[in-house]
Amino acid sequence: MALEIAFIEVAPARHSEFELAVRRAVAEVLSKAVGFKDFQLHKGIERPNTYTFHIQWETLEDHTVGFREGPLFPQWRAIIGEFFAKPPVVEHWDSLGWNS
Amino acid sequence: MALEIAFIEVAPARHSEFELAVRRAVAEVLSKAVGFKDFQLHKGIERPNTYTFHIQWETLEDHTVGFREGPLFPQWRAIIGEFFAKPPVVEHWDSLGWNS
Repeated sequence: MALEIAFIEVAPARHSEFELAVRRAVAEVLSKAVGFKDFQLHKGIERPNTYTFHIQWETLEDHTVGFREGPLFPQWRAIIGEFFAKPPVVEHWDSLGWNS
Repeated sequence: MALEIAFIEVAPARHSEFELAVRRAVAEVLSKAVGFKDFQLHKGIERPNTYTFHIQWETLEDHTVGFREGPLFPQWRAIIGEFFAKPPVVEHWDSLGWNS
């Protein structure tokens, strides 16, 4: 399992509209991606104009190859890309297979 | 619900020892904190010497006041602090209350 963590800055006036767009983009696009397992949206407390996506993928390549190089990516960005105040910061993490 | 995300850099030679220490620190210390809900550990793919903790707290203050200013914090740091190659980067996030 690979966890994608993205940090996305959004202009203050567009927060509500962004949150609705994300909900639609997940339902209509991301949830159809091969290897997609889970999506969570969080909003910064210290950085109130920054959101973080946590997206669980079955494998790293399901995101980096299957999704990013496939036909769904332009649809995903068409819905949410206009809200990005700057390019998102994206990294991947291995879940170590145990919780508290 | 407040999510704490911490990024922690650990020297390569100490990864296994660190992972064991984290497991012990969560079981013996963190899990006793008031407002503690969940802990997850992930290891960087692009940054293989960096780990991230995701810690769910009932409220922000359960972490920033109750835990950090209480008697458990020195115990927590006594177990895992020696592995930090530099000071951890810690921020808090509001969970927006919906998943995919």
